[in-house]
Amino acid sequence: MLINVGIIGATGHTGEVLIELLLNHPNVRISHLYNSGKSLPGEQVISEVFPKFKNRLDLICKKPDWPEIKKDCDLIFLALPHTVSMNFVPKLLSLGKKVIDLSADYRLKNTSVYENLYKATHQDKNNLKTAVYGLPELNRAKIKSAALIANPGCYPTCAILSIAPLLALDLVDTDSIIIDAKSGVSGAGKKLANEYLFSEIQGDFRAYKVNTHQHAPEIDQVLSKVSGKKVQVTFVPHLLPIERGILATVYLKKACGYKLKVKNLVELYKNFYKTEPFVRIKPDGVFPRIKDVAKTNFCDIGVKDFGNKIIVIGAIDNLLKGASSQAVQNMNIMYKLPEATGLL
Amino acid sequence: MLINVGIIGATGHTGEVLIELLLNHPNVRISHLYNSGKSLPGEQVISEVFPKFKNRLDLICKKPDWPEIKKDCDLIFLALPHTVSMNFVPKLLSLGKKVIDLSADYRLKNTSVYENLYKATHQDKNNLKTAVYGLPELNRAKIKSAALIANPGCYPTCAILSIAPLLALDLVDTDSIIIDAKSGVSGAGKKLANEYLFSEIQGDFRAYKVNTHQHAPEIDQVLSKVSGKKVQVTFVPHLLPIERGILATVYLKKACGYKLKVKNLVELYKNFYKTEPFVRIKPDGVFPRIKDVAKTNFCDIGVKDFGNKIIVIGAIDNLLKGASSQAVQNMNIMYKLPEATGLL
Amino acid sequence: MLINVGIIGATGHTGEVLIELLLNHPNVRISHLYNSGKSLPGEQVISEVFPKFKNRLDLICKKPDWPEIKKDCDLIFLALPHTVSMNFVPKLLSLGKKVIDLSADYRLKNTSVYENLYKATHQDKNNLKTAVYGLPELNRAKIKSAALIANPGCYPTCAILSIAPLLALDLVDTDSIIIDAKSGVSGAGKKLANEYLFSEIQGDFRAYKVNTHQHAPEIDQVLSKVSGKKVQVTFVPHLLPIERGILATVYLKKACGYKLKVKNLVELYKNFYKTEPFVRIKPDGVFPRIKDVAKTNFCDIGVKDFGNKIIVIGAIDNLLKGASSQAVQNMNIMYKLPEATGLL
Amino acid sequence: MLINVGIIGATGHTGEVLIELLLNHPNVRISHLYNSGKSLPGEQVISEVFPKFKNRLDLICKKPDWPEIKKDCDLIFLALPHTVSMNFVPKLLSLGKKVIDLSADYRLKNTSVYENLYKATHQDKNNLKTAVYGLPELNRAKIKSAALIANPGCYPTCAILSIAPLLALDLVDTDSIIIDAKSGVSGAGKKLANEYLFSEIQGDFRAYKVNTHQHAPEIDQVLSKVSGKKVQVTFVPHLLPIERGILATVYLKKACGYKLKVKNLVELYKNFYKTEPFVRIKPDGVFPRIKDVAKTNFCDIGVKDFGNKIIVIGAIDNLLKGASSQAVQNMNIMYKLPEATGLL
Repeated sequence: MLINVGIIGATGHTGEVLIELLLNHPNVRISHLYNSGKSLPGEQVISEVFPKFKNRLDLICKKPDWPEIKKDCDLIFLALPHTVSMNFVPKLLSLGKKVIDLSADYRLKNTSVYENLYKATHQDKNNLKTAVYGLPELNRAKIKSAALIANPGCYPTCAILSIAPLLALDLVDTDSIIIDAKSGVSGAGKKLANEYLFSEIQGDFRAYKVNTHQHAPEIDQVLSKVSGKKVQVTFVPHLLPIERGILATVYLKKACGYKLKVKNLVELYKNFYKTEPFVRIKPDGVFPRIKDVAKTNFCDIGVKDFGNKIIVIGAIDNLLKGASSQAVQNMNIMYKLPEATGLL
Repeated sequence: MLINVGIIGATGHTGEVLIELLLNHPNVRISHLYNSGKSLPGEQVISEVFPKFKNRLDLICKKPDWPEIKKDCDLIFLALPHTVSMNFVPKLLSLGKKVIDLSADYRLKNTSVYENLYKATHQDKNNLKTAVYGLPELNRAKIKSAALIANPGCYPTCAILSIAPLLALDLVDTDSIIIDAKSGVSGAGKKLANEYLFSEIQGDFRAYKVNTHQHAPEIDQVLSKVSGKKVQVTFVPHLLPIERGILATVYLKKACGYKLKVKNLVELYKNFYKTEPFVRIKPDGVFPRIKDVAKTNFCDIGVKDFGNKIIVIGAIDNLLKGASSQAVQNMNIMYKLPEATGLL
Repeated sequence: MLINVGIIGATGHTGEVLIELLLNHPNVRISHLYNSGKSLPGEQVISEVFPKFKNRLDLICKKPDWPEIKKDCDLIFLALPHTVSMNFVPKLLSLGKKVIDLSADYRLKNTSVYENLYKATHQDKNNLKTAVYGLPELNRAKIKSAALIANPGCYPTCAILSIAPLLALDLVDTDSIIIDAKSGVSGAGKKLANEYLFSEIQGDFRAYKVNTHQHAPEIDQVLSKVSGKKVQVTFVPHLLPIERGILATVYLKKACGYKLKVKNLVELYKNFYKTEPFVRIKPDGVFPRIKDVAKTNFCDIGVKDFGNKIIVIGAIDNLLKGASSQAVQNMNIMYKLPEATGLL
Repeated sequence: MLINVGIIGATGHTGEVLIELLLNHPNVRISHLYNSGKSLPGEQVISEVFPKFKNRLDLICKKPDWPEIKKDCDLIFLALPHTVSMNFVPKLLSLGKKVIDLSADYRLKNTSVYENLYKATHQDKNNLKTAVYGLPELNRAKIKSAALIANPGCYPTCAILSIAPLLALDLVDTDSIIIDAKSGVSGAGKKLANEYLFSEIQGDFRAYKVNTHQHAPEIDQVLSKVSGKKVQVTFVPHLLPIERGILATVYLKKACGYKLKVKNLVELYKNFYKTEPFVRIKPDGVFPRIKDVAKTNFCDIGVKDFGNKIIVIGAIDNLLKGASSQAVQNMNIMYKLPEATGLL
């Protein structure tokens, strides 16, 4: 099988990583690269934007050409900024294209939460209803038949996979979950701002958006669904002086009646994820590190029982399992390819 | 005033930093440098161990020479490994010398806890009783007249200063304090181990000693005294890919009756530390970063109210306020010098 | 076609990278992993040595098993320390296996130079004679039919590719070539030594083995052959605070009669490498950077004319084009596969 | 003695470092901080620009106030961008103030070279004539009585100190000097540009302004004076993924008649710099590293004889000996203070 793929937003950070992945995918042909249509300059050879692609991919990245998309593409990846994707989705779907959107535009079902966080009116509430949240470990069946995938955020992917087994089995309090998360700088994309200069990041470490980050409502929405109860997490992200990777340290309080149910937390996690190709559970007392998941689609998880508390630590590559390779995993599922194709 | 200072353990990481500080101190003469007496080679010119001291300090570091110490030194800094310091202290005190011990040997009043953590029998329970925990912000009066200072650990310094105001005023639950701490690599000293190689640390981030670190009982001991209740914190340290600095993110639950007491947390912290030269409280909604405290003796603290939770973030330089410059601050207090001498 | 591959020395740095590459190669099955036979512990699951391989490759790495090698392997990669490989090669060749040796043991044709540099008597002078130096850009024809490949060193790969066009056309003096090279830390493998600790490397930069590095004679040997004259370069390597990558800045003096021959240096280089899939020449006035070649098999080269001088800058990934991916490129050539298979 | 100091350009990188140094200087009072007069916002508390100065220096940085300068300041440091300083110097000198200019405006005696490099007409050719190049090791006598100091550039300081002894004694060819220099990112100041983002610098290394850097003419001018012959160096700077420090590797060819003159290069260098407090010569075969000079005013130099070639390696902290601490050293000389005051 050969999937003809177009990327809109190819010159950004997730676009770059997506290209890298798709170049290695045996069932994909990158047919066209597009910018948002508002970028300057209008046309750029992608290997001039990213010299590392020289001799590997020398396509021109240009503004979206609808007749061309209609004719040449089966699937479109949207690697666009938040609030921009929703301007492309309706037309793409109406042309019968499958769409995987890496922005936040179709993740939050509650548009007032979205509009408050992203300071923009949602333009496509219609398709929002049918968009499938593309976390394969929770939603594989729906992803298979979806036309529009809302690819999860990086922090939510790591946090949700770390916590879901405990909530699914009703083992912990839902109102005292604390997620202390740490991310590499690439999480901020390629933003040109003083705070992302080498001289500011190197040797530094700091929290940001303390308990006010836009990913918290995304985590809440998904975990509430898993739990069946309203979940509202405490979420503090921090900025690591590294390029790639997220590690989330999660503190949970056991629910009443916990003892009756669980003997071995590690086995419980292994069992919960036993058919998952990209979730790896650490042995008891061992916790993950970013080095082992960087440049991979894996999520590594360590969990341990401490009396009335449970500590879970999860790690992913924010640009891969937290963005581009998860998008490819979703594509594999949509096209009934072996799920790990191009990802191992 | 001129204080004649000797350092035992001068070739380690804290020794190196201590020398740097004392070279800049207008009231100190570094009289002698010693190793533990068991190091090989027996004698080394300090500027050959640390070439950066060339032309600044070319003293020989040798095994301790008791007659020389007796004759030449007023104060001895012990920059020795844990379990080694306690073999030197009794004799130094008997010679009438003041001692500032940077190891853990005299920090924990409960010797069974100490012996369990450090796998060694305590050799000097007598002096342990009178040793003063050298955290100036809590113990300044006792430090003034102390002969033996137990200089605090790096994590405890950061955690205790971040939490003490809330416990002193009985504002938070004492049994649900979570400290998610992150430290630069120098916290591990100069240990030659695979896990501290550049290739292992660079680009990585991980937790270690999850809720089993030896600094937790030190934090518990001091906070219990501040609070008047038994405190047992959840403490998870992580390893940052930077050389220097600690940032601790602390999650606390408000105690019952909280609302009656507090209007403004930032003001409360500012007031608690209002006469402290080395604690800086951030404005509301602003949190500290490691860059601002690295290479200084400052502890920066940010605190914010989130409904039934409080989040406090503290930052210090682990080698300075968390070790060597705090030792100098203690020396200044012991000798009635202006407390910031040599430290700004 | 399926090549059954064995790796001896699988737990080292180049072994690790080689496994990563071979897992992605469509024509390779990793049949067996071996250590040098002298390692402790004797047997290890490779995914316990390198947790990132968990769920991807869970083979046991054990001491070499000759009957098994005879039966199961077509090709053996030797990722062993220098002076160790030569103890394995004779037997492997006698079993009719193809061998790609990533050590220095078969690179230097002059054994007295080898023995002086590596402090060991050469054990296999016989096979040394027929070993082919595996730099595809210069030796492709011989590689095709070779049984034993001496895979080039990292610095030599970068330096030789940067200089060869000028020497092949007799354009520069052969006795005043200066190579100022800078390498990431992984060049030193996983050596446990104080100088490779994070605290020593981070924030530092230094030269080492100034004009005495063991790769200089390898460069001299190959360039002398290209030039037809005796070449002896000045070679100063430096240690960069990064994990991967080499950049070499080369200073050359034009030979007499230069002007008669050359109009455009960039075109000359492009022409020299015009059929090479993994050498990319930068436009005039543009020079390469490590970021663009890291994690690839490419060598990027920039060259510029400065009056009587020429400056050439080359960049590769020391672990890939400078070691493991170049070994795979050699394998592809030996097995008549498209040369870029598994490498783009 | 108390020197009342003003800084114009206090919010830049060298301004920040200068403040740090002057806060530790026992004979300095920082009277006023000014911006260039064109900055927005007009007034800022310096400890809000640099939170690390909180509680140490809370002065307001505002636009230059001439009556205030006249009344309160003895000496003005200009930490302004190139082409801006020369607009301030004439008035400051006319008010009888001493001036140390950290920009390039008064370094190059040949204004056509200056104007070509900095794309600006020189506004103050008059004072340019009497400005003293503030490299104490070469110009101490003139600095003592100077009113206007042109503080040297970072690369020139490192390169000139590394080469001067050989040229002063006529030991090397003046037309084949190659300087391969590597600098930390702070050399670029706090420029907000994509190329200085953490994600671009971390893990990368590259050359820039290959043989076209504006510091080459400064090096040529000073070395020509030392040598008495016209010197034109080949100079290639590179960007290191560290914050601070320069290391320059210099390749030189011995002049005819060399052998008659020199027995021991290391002794020759030690002798040349024997009264210098801030130049340290390494033992034979040992070369400097950036770690040993970072955060100091030292220049470390290693030199070695290789047949007809000499290799010299020098290292400094680009922000200190290459900028701000050299400025303080110059101030100490101008005010007849012990030269190392506030610098050790």
